[in-house]
Amino acid sequence: MPFLLQHTDEKTSARAGLLTLPHGDVETPIFMPVGTQGSVKTLHPAELEDLGAQIILGNTYHLWLRPGHELIKNFGGLHDFTTWRKPMLTDSGGFQVWSLAKMRKITEEGVRFQSHLDGSKMMLTPELSMEIQASLGSDIAMLFDECPPYPCEEKYASKSLDLTTRWAKRCKDWITENQPLTNALPQHHFGIVQGSIYADLREQSARELVELDFDGYAVGGVSVGEPEEEMFRAIDNAVPFLPKDKPRYAMGLGTPPQILEMISRGVDMFDCVMPTRIARHGVAFTLDGPIHIKNLVHANDQRPLCESSHPHVSRFSRSYIRHLFRAGEMLSLRLLSFHNLHFYLSLTRHAREAILAGTFSEFKESFIQRYNAKQTES
Amino acid sequence: MPFLLQHTDEKTSARAGLLTLPHGDVETPIFMPVGTQGSVKTLHPAELEDLGAQIILGNTYHLWLRPGHELIKNFGGLHDFTTWRKPMLTDSGGFQVWSLAKMRKITEEGVRFQSHLDGSKMMLTPELSMEIQASLGSDIAMLFDECPPYPCEEKYASKSLDLTTRWAKRCKDWITENQPLTNALPQHHFGIVQGSIYADLREQSARELVELDFDGYAVGGVSVGEPEEEMFRAIDNAVPFLPKDKPRYAMGLGTPPQILEMISRGVDMFDCVMPTRIARHGVAFTLDGPIHIKNLVHANDQRPLCESSHPHVSRFSRSYIRHLFRAGEMLSLRLLSFHNLHFYLSLTRHAREAILAGTFSEFKESFIQRYNAKQTES
Repeated sequence: MPFLLQHTDEKTSARAGLLTLPHGDVETPIFMPVGTQGSVKTLHPAELEDLGAQIILGNTYHLWLRPGHELIKNFGGLHDFTTWRKPMLTDSGGFQVWSLAKMRKITEEGVRFQSHLDGSKMMLTPELSMEIQASLGSDIAMLFDECPPYPCEEKYASKSLDLTTRWAKRCKDWITENQPLTNALPQHHFGIVQGSIYADLREQSARELVELDFDGYAVGGVSVGEPEEEMFRAIDNAVPFLPKDKPRYAMGLGTPPQILEMISRGVDMFDCVMPTRIARHGVAFTLDGPIHIKNLVHANDQRPLCESSHPHVSRFSRSYIRHLFRAGEMLSLRLLSFHNLHFYLSLTRHAREAILAGTFSEFKESFIQRYNAKQTES
Repeated sequence: MPFLLQHTDEKTSARAGLLTLPHGDVETPIFMPVGTQGSVKTLHPAELEDLGAQIILGNTYHLWLRPGHELIKNFGGLHDFTTWRKPMLTDSGGFQVWSLAKMRKITEEGVRFQSHLDGSKMMLTPELSMEIQASLGSDIAMLFDECPPYPCEEKYASKSLDLTTRWAKRCKDWITENQPLTNALPQHHFGIVQGSIYADLREQSARELVELDFDGYAVGGVSVGEPEEEMFRAIDNAVPFLPKDKPRYAMGLGTPPQILEMISRGVDMFDCVMPTRIARHGVAFTLDGPIHIKNLVHANDQRPLCESSHPHVSRFSRSYIRHLFRAGEMLSLRLLSFHNLHFYLSLTRHAREAILAGTFSEFKESFIQRYNAKQTES
């Protein structure tokens, strides 16, 4: 068992844990920067280490299409290809097929679709997703699931969930037969709880996956357009049926306050493209909420982006970063991306410290209150 | 006198020197990375230090238009605004008005033009160029000159040169009256030799500028579309009339072999946007000539870009950088820019070492021979 539950908060369900993976330990709760195409956008792996990133994501769909998992396998896996030496998690490709590919058609066998790059016809199956992820050599591979849209009728959600469970079994079978594929290091596998907004379906999904026994469990089908309360409810509906001694991962979210809400509900792992994506649109997270660096109010501001920023960024004034952003200088996108990831990684690190110190509730309330107090700029 | 001539090569006119500037020493020959808008494109100032950059450029025209020299002056100058702590050189803005601005009209007073950003009508004069550069607080400010086009009739080149000399006098007057403007640190000034392809005009220009007595001298009006031999001739026609105890700067060039040719002709300082500009088009310099990283030949190549690359880049394979470039990942532009600047800075550093060791001719011949041997990819 690679997960040690170190402490559970008394007032909430927040947990501090230690995940032991082939490429290193991960202290939870943890935020995982997203390296879709084998690179966390704009950043050098050495900068990710400076940021204290402990685990990053790679996207199976993107890497399969380009440069191809066979090429990466020939390098010895995604770690050797990218030179990132710490743990990595790969998703299954299911969500990207759902959100990016064209002409998607779901059958019992898998999903037929056209590549978003060149329109070529492709098919992703549970077995192929597992094979690609084994070739990539990630520390954690995600099971191939179907992610129903929001809103979604209960009948469709139920059928979709049954398919996800049958696919989970096929993934399990493939893993049992084929591991390890790329190297001597083991790969861990997380099941993905689906069930849309329906409590009984979330429970059913969680129970069926736990029955199959995976190394961890994710809650999927969240952050797909539903209201925030539905997102929280999806977590609340799944967590009670997940084992306490396995890590829990809420996929693809969210805002800083949402992350804290998820942590208080017992979630250990997070990933989200938002910190780097909105950085490229000129938005920086601060303890007083997000700011748009383009705004005139920053034109002569000699202060750093945020009082808590990393020295790599805090040496620069808001005025300078604003100038760079307006002038189209890439350095501004680097600095904003670095800063936002530092903000998220600090958030989960501080949450962990607070959990261990028994002060998580106070930390959470105080953070959210200040974050939401000024809403003038976001 | 801030320039110490340390050694002159016996077989060529190559020189090794030490330039002592307000923000630090510069060992010549030196390549100066270009930070047009207050940022060397894609790079962090800490990376420039890792690269061993000793002096960088800022562009007066760009910074005047955006964010404005008054804003930068309020920060205490360009060093404080950008956080680059080593020497900086600013150009006069004349070349950018010539190459970027619209509706340019030259009068005795200065140059009227329309901003390339928003079309607003502006006027740059010798006095204003000096004032802007004093506000920026660069270590070396360039005199405001007129850069004639190529080709250019002798009559126009002669008239243009006379204007450049009159403007040089006005710059000198402004400097005498107004220095120092921004802070207690002195600013040094370089005159710019013009005269197009005409030997007698180059001589006249050099003599007139030397008569006015500046801290260094540049050769301008090169790399404006003329054949390579004309470029070398422009240097050959100017250098004999420049004092040995002042630094010489060839503006805006060139390829690695051209840099070595210029060094052998007695030039000490270089700047060029090429290393960073062609990086953004996927080209990397190597000891065997430039390579296009997009080329299929690099798809599975596990070697670094170049055997002499910096560890910041050499940890990555050509295959990975090619993947990043094709996928539109900004990290590829960072790595190629960093690599190309490392290549240029190594080139001038090795040239200097060879000059001091008395082996410059051999170094130059051997470098150029290998660089030009393979012409399959460039």
